[in-house]
Amino acid sequence: MRASVIGGSGYIGGELVRLLLQHPEVDLMHVTSSRHSGRPLRAVHPNMRDQTDLTFVPDEEVTACDVVFLAVPHGAAAKSLDKWSEIAPKIVDLSADHRLHDSAARERFYSGPGPDPEWLSRFQAGFPELNRDGLRGADHISVPGCMANAAILALHPLARAGLVEGPVQVDARTGSSGGGRTPDEGSHHPERSGALRMAKPHGHRHIAEIEQACGVKVHMSVTAIEAVRGVQVVCRVTPSRRVSERELWALYREAYGKEPFVRLVRERSALHRLPEPKILSGTNYCDVGFALNADGDHLVVVAALDNLVKGGAGNAVHCFNIANGFDETAGLRFAGLHPV
Amino acid sequence: MRASVIGGSGYIGGELVRLLLQHPEVDLMHVTSSRHSGRPLRAVHPNMRDQTDLTFVPDEEVTACDVVFLAVPHGAAAKSLDKWSEIAPKIVDLSADHRLHDSAARERFYSGPGPDPEWLSRFQAGFPELNRDGLRGADHISVPGCMANAAILALHPLARAGLVEGPVQVDARTGSSGGGRTPDEGSHHPERSGALRMAKPHGHRHIAEIEQACGVKVHMSVTAIEAVRGVQVVCRVTPSRRVSERELWALYREAYGKEPFVRLVRERSALHRLPEPKILSGTNYCDVGFALNADGDHLVVVAALDNLVKGGAGNAVHCFNIANGFDETAGLRFAGLHPV
Amino acid sequence: MRASVIGGSGYIGGELVRLLLQHPEVDLMHVTSSRHSGRPLRAVHPNMRDQTDLTFVPDEEVTACDVVFLAVPHGAAAKSLDKWSEIAPKIVDLSADHRLHDSAARERFYSGPGPDPEWLSRFQAGFPELNRDGLRGADHISVPGCMANAAILALHPLARAGLVEGPVQVDARTGSSGGGRTPDEGSHHPERSGALRMAKPHGHRHIAEIEQACGVKVHMSVTAIEAVRGVQVVCRVTPSRRVSERELWALYREAYGKEPFVRLVRERSALHRLPEPKILSGTNYCDVGFALNADGDHLVVVAALDNLVKGGAGNAVHCFNIANGFDETAGLRFAGLHPV
Amino acid sequence: MRASVIGGSGYIGGELVRLLLQHPEVDLMHVTSSRHSGRPLRAVHPNMRDQTDLTFVPDEEVTACDVVFLAVPHGAAAKSLDKWSEIAPKIVDLSADHRLHDSAARERFYSGPGPDPEWLSRFQAGFPELNRDGLRGADHISVPGCMANAAILALHPLARAGLVEGPVQVDARTGSSGGGRTPDEGSHHPERSGALRMAKPHGHRHIAEIEQACGVKVHMSVTAIEAVRGVQVVCRVTPSRRVSERELWALYREAYGKEPFVRLVRERSALHRLPEPKILSGTNYCDVGFALNADGDHLVVVAALDNLVKGGAGNAVHCFNIANGFDETAGLRFAGLHPV
Repeated sequence: MRASVIGGSGYIGGELVRLLLQHPEVDLMHVTSSRHSGRPLRAVHPNMRDQTDLTFVPDEEVTACDVVFLAVPHGAAAKSLDKWSEIAPKIVDLSADHRLHDSAARERFYSGPGPDPEWLSRFQAGFPELNRDGLRGADHISVPGCMANAAILALHPLARAGLVEGPVQVDARTGSSGGGRTPDEGSHHPERSGALRMAKPHGHRHIAEIEQACGVKVHMSVTAIEAVRGVQVVCRVTPSRRVSERELWALYREAYGKEPFVRLVRERSALHRLPEPKILSGTNYCDVGFALNADGDHLVVVAALDNLVKGGAGNAVHCFNIANGFDETAGLRFAGLHPV
Repeated sequence: MRASVIGGSGYIGGELVRLLLQHPEVDLMHVTSSRHSGRPLRAVHPNMRDQTDLTFVPDEEVTACDVVFLAVPHGAAAKSLDKWSEIAPKIVDLSADHRLHDSAARERFYSGPGPDPEWLSRFQAGFPELNRDGLRGADHISVPGCMANAAILALHPLARAGLVEGPVQVDARTGSSGGGRTPDEGSHHPERSGALRMAKPHGHRHIAEIEQACGVKVHMSVTAIEAVRGVQVVCRVTPSRRVSERELWALYREAYGKEPFVRLVRERSALHRLPEPKILSGTNYCDVGFALNADGDHLVVVAALDNLVKGGAGNAVHCFNIANGFDETAGLRFAGLHPV
Repeated sequence: MRASVIGGSGYIGGELVRLLLQHPEVDLMHVTSSRHSGRPLRAVHPNMRDQTDLTFVPDEEVTACDVVFLAVPHGAAAKSLDKWSEIAPKIVDLSADHRLHDSAARERFYSGPGPDPEWLSRFQAGFPELNRDGLRGADHISVPGCMANAAILALHPLARAGLVEGPVQVDARTGSSGGGRTPDEGSHHPERSGALRMAKPHGHRHIAEIEQACGVKVHMSVTAIEAVRGVQVVCRVTPSRRVSERELWALYREAYGKEPFVRLVRERSALHRLPEPKILSGTNYCDVGFALNADGDHLVVVAALDNLVKGGAGNAVHCFNIANGFDETAGLRFAGLHPV
Repeated sequence: MRASVIGGSGYIGGELVRLLLQHPEVDLMHVTSSRHSGRPLRAVHPNMRDQTDLTFVPDEEVTACDVVFLAVPHGAAAKSLDKWSEIAPKIVDLSADHRLHDSAARERFYSGPGPDPEWLSRFQAGFPELNRDGLRGADHISVPGCMANAAILALHPLARAGLVEGPVQVDARTGSSGGGRTPDEGSHHPERSGALRMAKPHGHRHIAEIEQACGVKVHMSVTAIEAVRGVQVVCRVTPSRRVSERELWALYREAYGKEPFVRLVRERSALHRLPEPKILSGTNYCDVGFALNADGDHLVVVAALDNLVKGGAGNAVHCFNIANGFDETAGLRFAGLHPV
């Protein structure tokens, strides 16, 4: 299947390139960048040295293919759909443009004109674990945000079971790559190194995605931590009734027991008792675990993932695999490193 | 005033040495360590090179002085009080032994025999901001835990004003120096580096101190983060009634406006809008800030400090200064570094 | 081919497990650890969660197989050869025991009895790039040290061409995982974090391997840097005659142009102009580059690799692939991450 | 003494502010920044919260004072001397403009017009340890570069004793703050974090300063390391004759034994046997140590300092103290932190 990556010089774009190059069913045709047009991919993605001879091309040089992956800024994706749909029958959108279906929620968190309603209705939500049936055969897929995906995977089994009472508190922590490729004062190494910076105590855009997917009210704050890759969400839930750990494990096993990319973490004696992102770098796993307090009235659910993979490019490829009937794990089998 | 540091080879002990050596009212007499007895201080505290000619001595060699600072493990302090009280009329205890006054709370969180009740009743709680009057002239001072101190400074003004409804959620993050000087699997650099490890989702000992000081119920989880020094607490509070940001600032200004070591952080446009620990390394400041959501029903209070200074040795010196009528900031004027 | 890993709880052992599990020609039979016997692999190697059901077994439970990989401490490998050769006809030794062929050099750098001379003579040096012919069909392979491998790949083309005059100065930098799994004072996170610690200004053991392979005199110092994985060597060479950059590139291209795991780094305008380890984490690449000064009398050659992969487990698998006629890159195709 | 800092929003400027505010002989009058004019200092230097009420002013608002510290870019200092000399009789220049006295060397490393020769001749070199007599009473002081200062302090005693044969190899490592405050692709956290990046294998500007001060030929390469603050230089020297360690220690003790800010590091059993920068953050110390190999023909000298303090603002204040007959350590007594 011939694929092109639009906006291939960003971090998500780079991960798409890495994953698609090793995908057994994909021929990577074009990778676009207006700024880096003409340069070899390795000049921007140094890990691609000796992996490919491709050079960046401008958008205009993309020729007909089977699928385009849009790794472009919010707003730019929606505007360009008519163009890309003439190039490729399948579109995987990694921007935020087609994530929110409620226009009021959209306007609360995003400025600018929203997506075309007709286009919006065609997009399937890129949640393999929640929407596998919808993704099968889908031509248009909208991939969720990185922190939203982690929080949704943490909370959805509880929410569906009616176990969530009142607002959920989500403490999200994120590495610097989530901010993208453009340097600014906040990403300047002397300022960003060792930071523990709560940039967004309230009102982060990913809240809307979590509330939409889980149907619960969410308070979320986001803290920038010392890491390049990685997202961890710590979700605090007041159970709506008395539950036992055993019951909760059964719930999560039912939800994710057969999922190839969600792992339940339940250790009593090892060093890693709850999910943490560093061993997930480069993988498509979301690790999920939880701890109930002794009184049974306060539940902490923790999920972790690599924001550029399960939180972006890897999840896009997973959805694409489902849509096309490929082995779901094709191109996504890296197990992760330890120690790291 | 002649001072000795008992248990001077640990990290808190090292900070006591650093602070007392530059204190204008203190002569540092002895620094004890059974393991390192006879070695120069710089062999264990390399920053003390050329600052002092002292060598570690065993406890038995400490001679009569005016004050001893006990930087020894929990349990060891309580057992040794009769001995140290013959050496010095004043005792500053940095262990947990004399922090909790409710024996039920103590037994829930600590094993082993508790402190002698008569001794316990003599100790003043080492909170300059909450207990300045109690500290004046005090001979026996018990210094709070690092995360407890941060959370108490964050929450006390709200709790005292009756503004806290239901349990408070505290997300505490801590650097590796809080775990002390003894290497173990969890502190091994390849494992600990880059960690985001929730070792204690429930039941951390500092909860008892926060509940005792603030009179509110607390859920707290503790995450080990990539840092050597530093504690940050993120406290989530449901206000018991509608409050405005203005009212809250007034409350905090009233509580801390004249405090030499609590700073209110309230920035709209700078990079550091809420407290973070890295610029506090080596200082005795606790920075406090907050953000109320737009609906006014969810309040996030953030506090940060250096766990070895304001969370330990520096706070001990501050209390000691108050007790003895010295300038409160004596020995504690380092402003902190940026960038760092 | 049935393989077992002896000493599988260490960091090199963990990487052998990761690589062999994804190797198309290998069935991983047993992974041994006396200390962790009976525990699942994931308890020690958390990245192996859901990758395998294997548990650690004691050495005694290893049954007949085709190859054993010895990831055991120096000294232990040599002593156990008679035992393992009854279990498996092929042995890949990742310890230092069979690296040095000159007993005087060995005794200068290692204590304890050396290897059995007859066994020693059977081992092929594990350098795919220097000894591919020797490795083909080899039953016994001794894999070089991590820093030695990097320095040898940097220097061998120059040394073979007679271009090295006088001693070479090697400045080696290494992450903390090179020190293995056992915690000690030096690996304790508060001490090791942010270190720039020259533990070995002279006399590091890997010097002997470089001198043996390249036939040049070497001064090497080793600095521990803030990283978990990664080795970088900076080699300073006085050319024996006037050379041009063009001539040098030709030399290196001739040596490594067709090598699957040595990449020449030659960038004029990108951020990564010379090799650095962070983008190599998890890969089997050694990146090599150089810079000649304007006067042409001082040459700086830089090489970088992941000490646990190209500097250990990955190189072992590469040698094993050559020995058995497998695709050389089998099990080793991970391209590395960026950003990271 | 009334002082103003010109270019006070940069990192060196921020350190000047921190040090001068706590200097017993100095009244800090004005801190200039065209970009941040009108903002409080804490908006840019968050460690200055509650330390001062000063706001940035434009250069034009600086009124007559006793001394100006120029923390401005290279080239800008030389051009503005006539202006500043009307404002203040004393000028401390932290730029490179008045460091090099040989115009050929200057032109090799710097573009643009050089300084006015008459002005140049008035500036004393800011080396307390090499030029204390010259600094006494000096009105114009030019402070050396950070890496140059470290290398000069490492090499000068050897060079003066005629012990250096042939070129010296200097391997310099530097944290990110040395690159200043302006974000660019190379300082972007995802790229810079964990870097081990040899940006300058040859031809760094500080070479000229080392050669000028020591009279020896220098090859120096510079590697960016994972740190915000800190410089370490590893200098490799071939002794011109057989020397003993004892003789070398005598040489260094003679040179630096009475210096307040150079410490000789000579430990056999501690963790920190050779200088490293992390414990020097915020201090004005340069730590120096060395190791001679067993054959006595290869000497490794290591020096470390904080690039913003001893490598910049602190050294400027030290020189200023000498020039004005103040206690040399005034404002500079911070001992540094451990662990950190």
